[in-house]
This record gives sequence, structure tokens and C-alpha cells, in this order.
Amino acid sequence: MSDNLLSNIKNPIDLRQLEEAQLPQVAQELRDFIIDIVSVKEGHLGASLGVIELTIALHYIFDTPSDLLVWDVGHQAYGHKILTGRRENFHTNRQLNGISGFPKRSESVYDAFGVGHSSTSISAALGMAIASNLKGDFEKHHIAVIGDASIASGMAFEGLNHAGVTNANLLVILNDNAIGIDPSVGALKNYLTAVKEGKNPKKNNMIKSLNFDYSGPIDGHDVFAVIKELKRLKKVKGPKFLHIITTKGKGLQQAEDDQVKYHAPGKFDANTGEIPLKSEENLPPKYQDVFGLTILDLAKANEKIIGITPAMPSGSSLKFMMDVFPTRAFDVGIAEQHAVTLAAGMATQGMIVFCNIYSTFLQRAYDQVIHDVALQNLPVIFCLDRSGLVGEDGATHHGVFDLAYLRCIPNMIVYSPLNEVALRNILYTAQLGLNHPIAIRYPRGRGTIVDWLKPYEKIKIGKANCLKKGTKVAVLSNGTIGNNVTLALAKMGNHETIAHYNFAFIKPLDEQLLHTIFSDFENIITIEDGVVKGGFGSGVLEFSAQNNYTSKIKKLGVPDEFIEQGSVEQQQQYCKIDVKNLLAVFLSY
Amino acid sequence: MSDNLLSNIKNPIDLRQLEEAQLPQVAQELRDFIIDIVSVKEGHLGASLGVIELTIALHYIFDTPSDLLVWDVGHQAYGHKILTGRRENFHTNRQLNGISGFPKRSESVYDAFGVGHSSTSISAALGMAIASNLKGDFEKHHIAVIGDASIASGMAFEGLNHAGVTNANLLVILNDNAIGIDPSVGALKNYLTAVKEGKNPKKNNMIKSLNFDYSGPIDGHDVFAVIKELKRLKKVKGPKFLHIITTKGKGLQQAEDDQVKYHAPGKFDANTGEIPLKSEENLPPKYQDVFGLTILDLAKANEKIIGITPAMPSGSSLKFMMDVFPTRAFDVGIAEQHAVTLAAGMATQGMIVFCNIYSTFLQRAYDQVIHDVALQNLPVIFCLDRSGLVGEDGATHHGVFDLAYLRCIPNMIVYSPLNEVALRNILYTAQLGLNHPIAIRYPRGRGTIVDWLKPYEKIKIGKANCLKKGTKVAVLSNGTIGNNVTLALAKMGNHETIAHYNFAFIKPLDEQLLHTIFSDFENIITIEDGVVKGGFGSGVLEFSAQNNYTSKIKKLGVPDEFIEQGSVEQQQQYCKIDVKNLLAVFLSY
Repeated sequence: MSDNLLSNIKNPIDLRQLEEAQLPQVAQELRDFIIDIVSVKEGHLGASLGVIELTIALHYIFDTPSDLLVWDVGHQAYGHKILTGRRENFHTNRQLNGISGFPKRSESVYDAFGVGHSSTSISAALGMAIASNLKGDFEKHHIAVIGDASIASGMAFEGLNHAGVTNANLLVILNDNAIGIDPSVGALKNYLTAVKEGKNPKKNNMIKSLNFDYSGPIDGHDVFAVIKELKRLKKVKGPKFLHIITTKGKGLQQAEDDQVKYHAPGKFDANTGEIPLKSEENLPPKYQDVFGLTILDLAKANEKIIGITPAMPSGSSLKFMMDVFPTRAFDVGIAEQHAVTLAAGMATQGMIVFCNIYSTFLQRAYDQVIHDVALQNLPVIFCLDRSGLVGEDGATHHGVFDLAYLRCIPNMIVYSPLNEVALRNILYTAQLGLNHPIAIRYPRGRGTIVDWLKPYEKIKIGKANCLKKGTKVAVLSNGTIGNNVTLALAKMGNHETIAHYNFAFIKPLDEQLLHTIFSDFENIITIEDGVVKGGFGSGVLEFSAQNNYTSKIKKLGVPDEFIEQGSVEQQQQYCKIDVKNLLAVFLSY
Repeated sequence: MSDNLLSNIKNPIDLRQLEEAQLPQVAQELRDFIIDIVSVKEGHLGASLGVIELTIALHYIFDTPSDLLVWDVGHQAYGHKILTGRRENFHTNRQLNGISGFPKRSESVYDAFGVGHSSTSISAALGMAIASNLKGDFEKHHIAVIGDASIASGMAFEGLNHAGVTNANLLVILNDNAIGIDPSVGALKNYLTAVKEGKNPKKNNMIKSLNFDYSGPIDGHDVFAVIKELKRLKKVKGPKFLHIITTKGKGLQQAEDDQVKYHAPGKFDANTGEIPLKSEENLPPKYQDVFGLTILDLAKANEKIIGITPAMPSGSSLKFMMDVFPTRAFDVGIAEQHAVTLAAGMATQGMIVFCNIYSTFLQRAYDQVIHDVALQNLPVIFCLDRSGLVGEDGATHHGVFDLAYLRCIPNMIVYSPLNEVALRNILYTAQLGLNHPIAIRYPRGRGTIVDWLKPYEKIKIGKANCLKKGTKVAVLSNGTIGNNVTLALAKMGNHETIAHYNFAFIKPLDEQLLHTIFSDFENIITIEDGVVKGGFGSGVLEFSAQNNYTSKIKKLGVPDEFIEQGSVEQQQQYCKIDVKNLLAVFLSY
């Protein structure tokens, strides 16, 4: 038997054979294993390092997978994956055909619930616990591990509020490290901080007010203390709540010191923790930075401008504005519903509000977009970051439904810029004052234009434009996927048969140009970085039917299935909207 | 000057001319006025009667409309409307071209924020308060009045959690009457009840834990007490919270005694409060009761069946099952997000979960449908009540987006029954076990079939059927709007030219039958009780384009605008999907 304990742990049954005294060694080995692999293969780092002891203690004390363990968000579940049969595959994390970066039911019986978006764990685990009760199983344990950023989201409150009046065998473990991806915010966070500092821990305990058996806070890196408390709680029936204090990035000094950067640091040196400096000179900018730098620039000239992000100041680059105008740029925490209606309230008072939400998370505030913004026709400016296929985060995080779910809402303007300059100009245009709300969607990552800081130009709402003339086939693209069209056309020598139109607005559609196109072309291809069911192409079909055109229309986009993790390029290949497939389609005419 | 004070109050400026001692008389007159009109014209009753004193006190003490007053949900705002310039129009409440049943910005400058769905008021008022701060106005007051059912929703928590760390001039008034439409539920409600009963009011104050200046509870029907406290709070800066205790239906004995029935009692005797008994014999059933009685019947035979409603046990008729199987049917409060993920958690354990949510409120849980249910392909059975045009509740409450926003989600089955028998049979079919989640959408109110209690029949998933053969035009309808087609066809003597197909499934579409139809017919009409952008008709267009068919397709449904209040018939006329318009369309071929 090797000195290395971890290499002998195939699953939690092996873990449970060990003496308690051996667990700190397992913790050290697990940390090293994660650091070694993530340093090379990339992925989420800090969150998993922070729950190593908790992960070991949970699988040591509870009878997983019979006892059901739900990790909120799930990017902290690397240790869980490694201890539950996926150590040898862990190097395929987040890759095409590899293991998912998040717990996933189809991947392992130990993954009791698929996660990715935050704050679902309490509701899911409560559902399981109630089901167990109904099946007459009162011994099974149901555990939700949730962070202090996630528990401040409304959905988590709803779960707690229900659980508190049940006799469900539910254990909620608050992993309190005072940070989500960015530092946590809000009144509940302040309260938890006061508890940690020993201030007022008994009075006004919000968790107790919701009828939970509250215990803690305890040191989440003391594996013996955690085990002792879990053993005690195992005997307590009904809903119970354990507050543990951890340090995100625990065990890697740089990750502890710079928790935002080491949330998902990319490649780094496993020994020193250093992240190699990459030269960004002469690279085109990230769309996020185009947003962040542009709103900052505009806010300097227009004092009515306000920025809002639900918990993504770094990811969205709203941070630039928050640093310069802290009273006008808000991180409201993981609270998309609140973010949207807060923006609506501000807009009623004449403020120009940029509400930046990842496309996949705007799904959390769909009703607020309809009921509080669009119905009242308030000119809120939604900036939908990470729209379209998102790559390694996979099926939970794609921003592919937005065109379909926004296009059906009256009053909305929906715009996908072709490139960085277009994004910059639509941000400029929107703050000049629109008569409607607008959703501006753009992808994760870098664009294509190094020299993007050009003078602002006002964009005409609803106007499409011709990028390349042609004789036989008209290709209508929406957003940055249009750059794939341009590349494919270049590969065929910009053959005269294929015309290319940039329909950045899917709502309103440029009907004038559509009339010309449908009159001139027998073959039309639409392409979008979103679901084909109900999206941009469907809008073009609707126009065609309404006007009795007979051109043949081929729709390209994301098919009607959930797309697994991989690189964006691999996902585009799968969806047949990559350059190579487009070229083949164009050549087939 | 008349003895009647109310008749001299055109707006709050007039109100403020009165002596405080006269306000109880205004309260009495306002109550009588509301009872008189609602008894004849129908509408929401109990909620407004409960806040009469609060309404008067707010407009008496605060400088509305300069101070901004946001009513949560808004069905309690009748008194507010009457005191703010709409007394003489109040008899047009909820009617076509009349005033809205809810506060509405376009209707009055006193309606600071449009409402209808619950729990938005704190976020909206906070947004206004922050905007005032940024504009340098630190004197303006921003008031959110929210009920104890609404404040238990996650969105309200998100607003409180943010407000608690601001210096915004926000006053949250909790109107605690222990009831929403049905009695309130959850741990927070239990806590509030304990506070009311004088138990433990100081310890574990959840509101204080969120950093609010908490005061109360006080008697909300003592107008002098309310005024005194509002005067005090007017001088307190920053976020503050007043807890008042009221009785829903206050002043009408029957409404106090039976608060659920008198939430919106229909016509009643203004003097006695009695609701005339209507004979329901020989009437076709309400779709709600078809759901409620069928799930009860199925639950008797299948112990895996669970029912969930977010705060609508009476409205959805899940109450029938709750009464018989209280451990298997859950009212989780106004918590749509939690309801859906709770259902998902239960489904992972093999339970058969019927999650009944009004179509308009499923918008609140869109992400949970995608991320927690559809992505994991859990066979949750969504029952979408009040789908389509809903009549008098108006623009905030239509269930017209569901076909568009659900159709784009992979794995979903989407079904709209043609009638009560079809609803009953799809409920039966779903609990036999499906491989996918399903959304079953049906309208508010009565169907057409008196004799609906027939033996169960299993429905084949994805199968459409021919209701009437024809030679020239194929009409494809989805759901109960198909009955308008049948009536229109009857009016034209069931002329042989028009065929009628019932496409109850919009997902999966019956492609086999569509191939036949597109081969046989040059003209196709689709009709749906939902938005035409992205809905059923768009699905048919997508099929046609994909298969290169050339038939002309005309799409009928709800146009791309928000539809105002009125009767369902009036709304159908406006959308040109009523029988008369359909007849005209059919005759035009």
C-alpha cells in the first residue's frame, strides 16, 4: 500500500476505512492533487480548496450516496468528485467528453442534484427529504452545502422559509467564507460577519427566526471539529443549520491572498502559485472590458448613468465603474430579480440604468423583465454578458435561450453587436435615451478588433446592413457569429454568389431590408448563436410568412438539446455553426 | 358642503385639509364606497378594506405624489385610487377602457410603480430612493407597502437584504394580516405570528438582523396610532420598517369571517354582505376543478403523487387534495422558484410531482424550469393555470408568453388540452410516467362539457388529431381556443372547404400529420391563445421551412403588445381570435 492515502481511495467506502487521525493527511493530498491538476488543466480553484475538510468529513460521517448530498453552485465540488470515483478522470474536467465542472446526476450516483446556477440546493435537498419522509424513510440524511453569497439569494430564503415549518431531515451547511466570485455583499453578510466576530451572535439570529436548529460558527478547516459536530447533528431530527467558517483558496497562499483572481485562475505554477504574466498587448479586447471601459467613459459625461450587477463586478468588468463611481455602480449580490426591478425603480426617476446580467442568469429575472420593465416600457439597458455558447462551463451556463425568450416580449429592443465597436456604439446610443428597454447581448471573451477605441457613432435602432453583396444566397447573421460567416466567405474567395447581411437587431427587425432581400434572393440562410427554436431565424420566418414570400429559408443555430462542455469552437462544430461547416453549407448552393 | 367628506376629496391635497379627528369618518365612507361599488361591479374586496386607515394615513402624512408610494401586488389599492382622482371612474374598475384593477403608471401620477405580481415593491421603492439620493434629494420619502404573504417571497428578501446596507430613505410597511389570497404559510409567518402574540418580539428579529430600524407591531385600524407612528418615522433617515396588524376584509363582517371567499367575491349584497347562491347544476366545470378533482382521484390510487402550489390552493383547486392528503399536497407560499426546484428534488426520488403554477407566475421560475428540471430531464408535471388571455386582471396577469418561452427549452413536452376531458386524460397520462417534463396549460374558468367525468384514456404524446375534414384550408389550433374555431365553422354550416386539426401538443409537434397536411393543403391557418411571436405558429413555420413546403401559412394569436383589461371575449376580439373574426377569416378563403 502506497504512503499516499488518496491514491487508495476509490470512493467514500475506502475513505471510511481510515482512522480519523489520518484525515488531515488525506486533506493535504487532496489539496495537492487539485492544485496539481487545475494548475495545468485550468478550472475553478479557490472554492474547492476551501471545503476540503468539509468534503472529507461529510463523506466520512454520512452514508453517501444513500444519504443525499447537494452542493450549491457546485464549483466547490472538485474534492467531492475526486473522492467519489472520478480521481482518474479528473484531468478531463470541463473538457469535451470529459467530466463536468459541476456535479451532474448522469455522471455519478454521488451527484444527487445537478447544479451550476446558485441557491438551488436548499429547495432540492428539501424536496428529497420530504420524499424520503413520504416513503417512510426517516433515517436518511439530506444535506445542502451553500455559501454565504448563495444563501443571500431570494431562492435560498424561500427554501429556508419552507423548510423551517417541516420536519424534514434536512441539514443546511453554510460555508461562510465571505466571498462568492467577488466579495459577498448585503445586510445578511454583515450579520454573518458580526456573528463570526463574536458580536451579537445570540440576538436577532435570522436563521433561528426561521425555526432552524442553528449551530456554529465553527472552524471549517478543523476536520476533527467538523466531524464532531456532524456526528452530533446526525442525531438531530428535523431541519438544522450548521455555520462553518472557511477560507476560500485555503492552502495555497496566493489563492488565499487574492481570492477573486484565484477563483478560476487559469494555468499557474503548482509549486509557487504564480500565474505567468501573459502579454495582452496587441490583443483585441474582451467584450467584458469593452462594456466596463465604455460605461465608465460614458458615466463620466452623463451623471444619470447607473450600473448594476448581481454579484459579477469582476466578471462583467463593471468593477471599472465601481472603482471610480462607487455611489453609482452597484453589486447587489446574487439577486437577479431584485437587480432588474431595482433598475426599473431607478428608471422611473429618469436615471439611465445599465443592468449587466449574464444571459444565463437573466433567466432568473424573466418575470421582472416582462412585468416590471417591458410592461411599463421603462428604458432599462440590459447588458447580457456570456450570451451564446459559453464553452467549458457547459450546459448549465449557455446563454442560448435569450433571443427566443426576449423576442416574444412586447416593447423590447434586442441587439447583438457584430464586434467590439458595435458594442461600444450601442452602449453609447442607449444612454442617449431610448423609448424602450433594450437587451444587448455579447459573448464571453475577446473580440477581433485591436483598434476598437474609435469615436462614438450613434446606431440607428432597427437597422441592418449589408457586409457583402452577392447574387444567389443571402446569409443573415445576428451578432458575433457573423464573424464566422465572414471567415467562411473569405475561405471561398468571397465568391460572388453569397451575400452577407448583419442583422444585429432581432427586434425590431429591419423589415425594409428584408423586403429587398426576399425580393432579390431565392435562398436565405439565417445564423445565430442561440437556439433555433423561436430565435432570430424564426423571426425571419414570421416575416416571410406574413408577407407571402416564397424564398427557401435555412436556419442555423443551436439545436433543440442541451450542449455539453467543451471549447466554444468544439461546441460551434457540434452545432454546425463553425467556419468549416458554414463553408460546406455555402458551397452546397 | 355635503356631510359626506369623501365626495369632496378629489385628491390627497383635499384630504390634508381635514382635521385628524375627521379621518375615521373618511375611513367609514371610503369603506362604504368600495363595498357599494365592488358589490355590483365585482373586483378585489378584502385587501382594500384592510388598509383603509393605512391608505388615509399615508396620503395624509406624506406629500404624495412627490413622495413615492408603491403598493405591493396592488389589489389593495382601491382606497388609494379613490383618494387620488379616480373616485368618479371607480365604477369602471377592471373594465375595458376603464381603470385598471392595479396601480398603473400611465393611469395616474400617484401610481409610482405598476404592480400586479407580488413582492416587487421593496426593490422598486429602493431604486427610487437611491435615485433620489443621487439627485441630491434627501428629503423625499419612498414607501413600499407589502403584505406578509408577499414579503415571504425571495424577491422581497433580496430587496431587504440590499436596502439594509444603504442609506436610502426607504420605509417598508408590513401589512400583516396573516393572509395572502389564502392564509400565509412558512417560517417567517410563524415568526410574525409570535411577534403579534407578544412572544419573543425582541429576540431573533429577522428584520433587525437585516439592519432595518424596526418598529411595531401597531394596530393598523387605529388611524391615530398609524398617523402618530408615520409622523415619527418621517423624521428617521435611512431604511426603516413598520409592522402593522390589520384584518383583511375589515368592516364587512362576512369578509372578515371568510377571508378567502371575500378576496374577490364577485357580486354580493352591499348591505348584508351575502353572496347570492348561484346554481352550478348543469354547468360545465371550471378547468381548475377538473385539475383539483382529477389529481385527488389519481392520488388515491397512486401514492407517489405529490401536489405543489405557490400560494394558490383555492385558485388552483389543489385545496381538494390538500384536504384529503395534507402530507402530500403543499402550499409553499409565494415562492415559485422554490416550488419548481422542490418539485425537481422530489422527482429525483421517484415521486410524481404536479407543480401547479399560474402561467403568468411561472415566469418567476423560468430558470428553475430550464436549469433544475429540463436540463436534468426530470419528469415534473407543470400545470399552468390561467394560461392565455385572462380578462379583467389585465396586462400584468395574461398567460400568453408560455408557449414561446417553453417551446425553446429542450426536453420539454408542452400540451394545451382542447377541453376538460383532454385535461383530465393528460393528467392521467402524465402520472403513468413520462420520460420528460411536461407543461400542461389551460385557461381560467369553465369549459364546455357538463359530462366530463368519463373513464380515463391514455393520450399518445405528440399526437394531433383531425376534428373536421376539409378540402381547401387547414386550420391548426392549440388548446381551448380550438373551440372558437369549431363555433365559427358551425356558423358557416361546417362548409366542406375548411379542415380543422387539434394540435394540443406544440412540443413535440405531430410531424407525421403535418407532412400530410402540408401535402394536402395550400392554405394553412394556425391559431393559439398566446403571443404569435415564437409560439405554436412559429413552430409550424419552422417545420414548413425545414421541409421546404410552400403552403401559405397565416398565424393568428395575441399580437406583439400588452393587452389591457376587459372580458376575455373583448380581449379575444381585440386579438381577432374571437368567433366572429375567425368566421370572417374563414370566409375570406
